[in-house]
Amino acid sequence: MQLVETIKQIQPLDETAMQLARERQNLITKPAGSLGRLEELSIQLAGMMGKPMPVIRNKTIIIMAGDHGVVAEGVSAYPQEVTRQMVLNFLAGGAAINVLARHVGAKVVVADMGVAREIPTASETLIRRKIGTGTMNLARGPAMSCEQAEESVQSGIDIALGEIFKGADILGAGDMGIGNTTPSAAIACALMSVPPDKIAGHGTGINDEGLERKISAIVWGLENNRPNTEDGLDVLAKVGGFEIGGLAGVMIGAASKHVPVMVDGFISTAAAMIAVTIAPQCKKYLIAAHRSRENGHMLMLEWLGLKPLLDLDMRLGEGSGAAIGISLAEAACKVLSEMATFAEAGVSEKDS
Amino acid sequence: MQLVETIKQIQPLDETAMQLARERQNLITKPAGSLGRLEELSIQLAGMMGKPMPVIRNKTIIIMAGDHGVVAEGVSAYPQEVTRQMVLNFLAGGAAINVLARHVGAKVVVADMGVAREIPTASETLIRRKIGTGTMNLARGPAMSCEQAEESVQSGIDIALGEIFKGADILGAGDMGIGNTTPSAAIACALMSVPPDKIAGHGTGINDEGLERKISAIVWGLENNRPNTEDGLDVLAKVGGFEIGGLAGVMIGAASKHVPVMVDGFISTAAAMIAVTIAPQCKKYLIAAHRSRENGHMLMLEWLGLKPLLDLDMRLGEGSGAAIGISLAEAACKVLSEMATFAEAGVSEKDS
Repeated sequence: MQLVETIKQIQPLDETAMQLARERQNLITKPAGSLGRLEELSIQLAGMMGKPMPVIRNKTIIIMAGDHGVVAEGVSAYPQEVTRQMVLNFLAGGAAINVLARHVGAKVVVADMGVAREIPTASETLIRRKIGTGTMNLARGPAMSCEQAEESVQSGIDIALGEIFKGADILGAGDMGIGNTTPSAAIACALMSVPPDKIAGHGTGINDEGLERKISAIVWGLENNRPNTEDGLDVLAKVGGFEIGGLAGVMIGAASKHVPVMVDGFISTAAAMIAVTIAPQCKKYLIAAHRSRENGHMLMLEWLGLKPLLDLDMRLGEGSGAAIGISLAEAACKVLSEMATFAEAGVSEKDS
Repeated sequence: MQLVETIKQIQPLDETAMQLARERQNLITKPAGSLGRLEELSIQLAGMMGKPMPVIRNKTIIIMAGDHGVVAEGVSAYPQEVTRQMVLNFLAGGAAINVLARHVGAKVVVADMGVAREIPTASETLIRRKIGTGTMNLARGPAMSCEQAEESVQSGIDIALGEIFKGADILGAGDMGIGNTTPSAAIACALMSVPPDKIAGHGTGINDEGLERKISAIVWGLENNRPNTEDGLDVLAKVGGFEIGGLAGVMIGAASKHVPVMVDGFISTAAAMIAVTIAPQCKKYLIAAHRSRENGHMLMLEWLGLKPLLDLDMRLGEGSGAAIGISLAEAACKVLSEMATFAEAGVSEKDS
């Protein structure tokens, strides 16, 4: 479905479902509020999913992969080839996200949104939507054309709708792309109007000189490209990435179908910033899984108005934080629907 | 096995296993350190379990229940009868811990360590170890005799060893006992030498007058009983509870068998303070699941030197935080053993 039409379909949260969920939280056998964030989360999920007792059965983590021309500036600790190698690792089931997704019972799909080289595998887990063979170098000019930006978001919508059609009750947003903390930081700097040293961090582990190169690349990128911060697609085109646009599309597509999206870490949060700039209504369907150790992530979450569920010093991406967050969301729904009420269990209520 | 003998069997963490786990964390396909607390946890678990690649399959949450004479002081928002009613709810599977334990694949056992009235059920899930029909009022005299204190710890050891014999790879420590935030706060105040207003909180939801009564009860309890803070059993006898002693025993027993214990919230942490006062060696086998919203919990964790994995504003007890923590521990082990190495996956390593 086309982007504009998809955005029109995004509805506010279902207040009636939320009220019913809130009331039930006070009827089940525990002191009111004693499950804290799990209670809040269950009420939020009721509103998103439009059901007083939402059920999360099928969980899908969508990992979007893409390469980045900005690696020419020496912004990453790993060679570009690792993007493709890690995609193969995802398809073989050997990466952290595979282990964590199996642990929480989630399915993993991997979308090639713009990996530089071909992925030579015919795996059912792989979705081929290559917008280009890596972006251009954002430090020297736009990362992609306007058409490519729109195509990447559109592809993300299509992929989300496809997974929802197959039964996904919740989506996790994961990323893979050597160099992609640089466009993510650039997006955050543009949209928040903050200098790069407040946002950019050591990514997968560059040293201090690498971090300086990264900051310079972002400064140049923003000065050369002057993204229009009112226009999410323009920011994406100027300093973004194909997988980042794809993840923004996933969020918009999911929101249009009342499906919650568990936002992962730094890259996924930058994608969320693009998504809400394009379609502010989709924000209500986003849940922040965790606070990444990457510099600036917390500021980005605050800009989005999202409070992370976890703080485990993680900074891997791939949807690794989202996997754990999805398990908490499922637990929150189960608590709401499976616990006995005071009346059912014959438990006395509070004295006063 | 007798307490003294059990304590003698507690060994330091296995440094070799930890070193091998640490090395493997750097060989698997992710930037070193990028899984943060999950990596640390896997290394810790390797040390506890004495295996370079520990495996957590069978998970058991032991909920210990007991009543408290101090409820006569008006320290709780719920009537005492709720302890027994909630035990029945646990046995019927309708409480939060049942839902969360099912979610993470853990077994629940419930031990009646001192519920005031009889539990009229022959459930396999129920372990009968009633030390007394509730403690005495700690504000007016010792909560229990020295013999009862020792018996409660001993029973906890026996129960832990029983569950480990049945195959438990990790134990979760949960509690149920109307009024038990009062003895827990009293234990913390005694052992940390801090005034009750720094530790006691609103528990299951008492109002401000109730909190004042609670603080007074703790002040009286400590003044009247003068617990010997060098002697964990004496502190337990003077201001503790049967389920608290039982949980301390679970921790000591598990440590003697190289089995990690996931500490839950406020009450379980007070039990941990008793356990490490009795047997300092057992501390290395404890993992703090979460930071409870109950006042003072963080100070208690700091005293123990434990850093909580989660902060979800929970304050329910029952082992609810421990259930989620156990799932993280299992995930940490799986990441360590199931992820592919760089060599296996053909992924290039860091440039520098």
